[in-house]
Amino acid sequence: MEIEDLARGVLEGNRRALARAITLIESGRADHRQAATRLMERLNAEDHGREALRVGLSGTPGVGKSTFIEAFGTMLTRQGKRVGVLAVDPSSARSGGSILGDKTRMERLSRDPNAFIRPSPAQSHLGGVARRTREAIALLEAAGFDAVLVETVGVGQSETVVAEMTDLFCLLLAPAGGDELQGVKRGIMEMADLLVVNKADGELKSTATRTCSDYAGALRLLRKRPQDPEGFPKAMTVSAVEEAGLEGVWGEMTALASWRKDHGHWETRRAEQARYWFEAEVREGLLARLKREPVKGAMARMAEEVERGEVTAAVAAETLLREFLQMPDAELADQV
Amino acid sequence: MEIEDLARGVLEGNRRALARAITLIESGRADHRQAATRLMERLNAEDHGREALRVGLSGTPGVGKSTFIEAFGTMLTRQGKRVGVLAVDPSSARSGGSILGDKTRMERLSRDPNAFIRPSPAQSHLGGVARRTREAIALLEAAGFDAVLVETVGVGQSETVVAEMTDLFCLLLAPAGGDELQGVKRGIMEMADLLVVNKADGELKSTATRTCSDYAGALRLLRKRPQDPEGFPKAMTVSAVEEAGLEGVWGEMTALASWRKDHGHWETRRAEQARYWFEAEVREGLLARLKREPVKGAMARMAEEVERGEVTAAVAAETLLREFLQMPDAELADQV
Repeated sequence: MEIEDLARGVLEGNRRALARAITLIESGRADHRQAATRLMERLNAEDHGREALRVGLSGTPGVGKSTFIEAFGTMLTRQGKRVGVLAVDPSSARSGGSILGDKTRMERLSRDPNAFIRPSPAQSHLGGVARRTREAIALLEAAGFDAVLVETVGVGQSETVVAEMTDLFCLLLAPAGGDELQGVKRGIMEMADLLVVNKADGELKSTATRTCSDYAGALRLLRKRPQDPEGFPKAMTVSAVEEAGLEGVWGEMTALASWRKDHGHWETRRAEQARYWFEAEVREGLLARLKREPVKGAMARMAEEVERGEVTAAVAAETLLREFLQMPDAELADQV
Repeated sequence: MEIEDLARGVLEGNRRALARAITLIESGRADHRQAATRLMERLNAEDHGREALRVGLSGTPGVGKSTFIEAFGTMLTRQGKRVGVLAVDPSSARSGGSILGDKTRMERLSRDPNAFIRPSPAQSHLGGVARRTREAIALLEAAGFDAVLVETVGVGQSETVVAEMTDLFCLLLAPAGGDELQGVKRGIMEMADLLVVNKADGELKSTATRTCSDYAGALRLLRKRPQDPEGFPKAMTVSAVEEAGLEGVWGEMTALASWRKDHGHWETRRAEQARYWFEAEVREGLLARLKREPVKGAMARMAEEVERGEVTAAVAAETLLREFLQMPDAELADQV
């Protein structure tokens, strides 16, 4: 299929074209990568004017993330909305895909014609996962999807990565005693626009309500951010299994999105994110040279000389930069 | 003064030569930098066989770091040992030097002929501070100092930087209620070889003892590290103002150092650190190209195009890498 046909298929919202396009951007082959770049350029040039609400979703295992996404996504498709679900999973290379890997986890939503679920590609490298996910978001947006949910597991840096590619960040939490509130890292709390306490049903209902007000109290202690209207970030309870509170979550998401659009924060944020990823790709691309021959081998040999104390780290680094990475002496002197 | 004279002066333990050498390595001027590199190479080539005990010291403001260093350093010089004190302070560029900046803070030690105190140079860039501090450590070692204390404030990444250039890491703590124990980040705890609870005097004595046993309990929960003998990491109390417990701290430090030397961990660690800094310098040197013209200007222009949505982040990054950083297409395809 030619790039032009593929682009048109995506813009028409054709599921088969979309699936092929995502497969293309996920490929590591050099010719595929070039084709993918042309496809993304072509779609970027098309002034389709479509904008999905990009929602980052995080939460530690056990909070009921997939049950929530299934119920939340189905609620949206029932309203006639089209929903994409992607995953950023830095652990998938090791575990073979710990999230979204098993499609049966969201059986109902995966059969829904208005939903498009894509598991995280097995990939060791968070930078590579990040680019593929950003491109998949752009594809879903070009295909006219209304919401794109980007799921991540609550580990390490993946939240930051997801927050830098989404419009809203939603942290899913389980009902818990007051002591466990500490378990959520402050950095993650500060990143969230919505804290959603799941499992507000059955025996856990009152615990969920209490947990929610604990978090609401903790949120009030955070410094107000310019991109937030009064009352945000917000904590709320839902029951994914009873499908309760889901419209409320969507209501808060769209209210926040509208406010940010009206107050100029939306476009600014997307522009900042584009710059962030551009700069990250440049840095990563440059550092990738160190992993390639002949630099890789030279670096390993020189590291051993440094370990043996035959040369200082500074001199070895300067030698490598000059001889293998073509850095002129003027630049070397300046970098100190 | 010629490099050779300067090197000889440092090796003779001449204070004036040492001070000049440190001034040289701290200079940002290109010709100074080249001279500093030659000096460090010259000293590295000299098989002086001297090895100082390099001790990283951290603790939040208020724990009595300078009082401790003054008392601890004076105790060592009284034993005839020569002690160097350096500082890694990433905040000093902003604050004008918040630690060690005021020599009166350690008035007694700074007048001690067997001590050499050097405040942190004003410098915005943690990488630059790191290199200068490593080179200053090497200078003090070449000059025959027995111990080098590298002080840092308990903020952000500076502990990691200091731990990567010292043999032992010592965390200074204040007496506190059990709840506040949580205030020490787990990552910092795991880095420490010794936890020293200061101010074990007067009214705070019993609180200090309790705090110490709380920390000892917390340490027992950490996974045993291969580089530790039984009983380490260790928590202990001192009183810097009453000069109590300081010999004990030195005793534990030297016992740990001897055990690690006997069990092969010492040399391995120093070799790993040398490799770490070599690789860090290469990465930093390479990324420094992005801050220099013509790349800097091109990158800023392209970032604006990316922000306006005229080009995708991926295409802009590839263009910059190809046109301004001379990366061949083969490398670009591979880096994904």
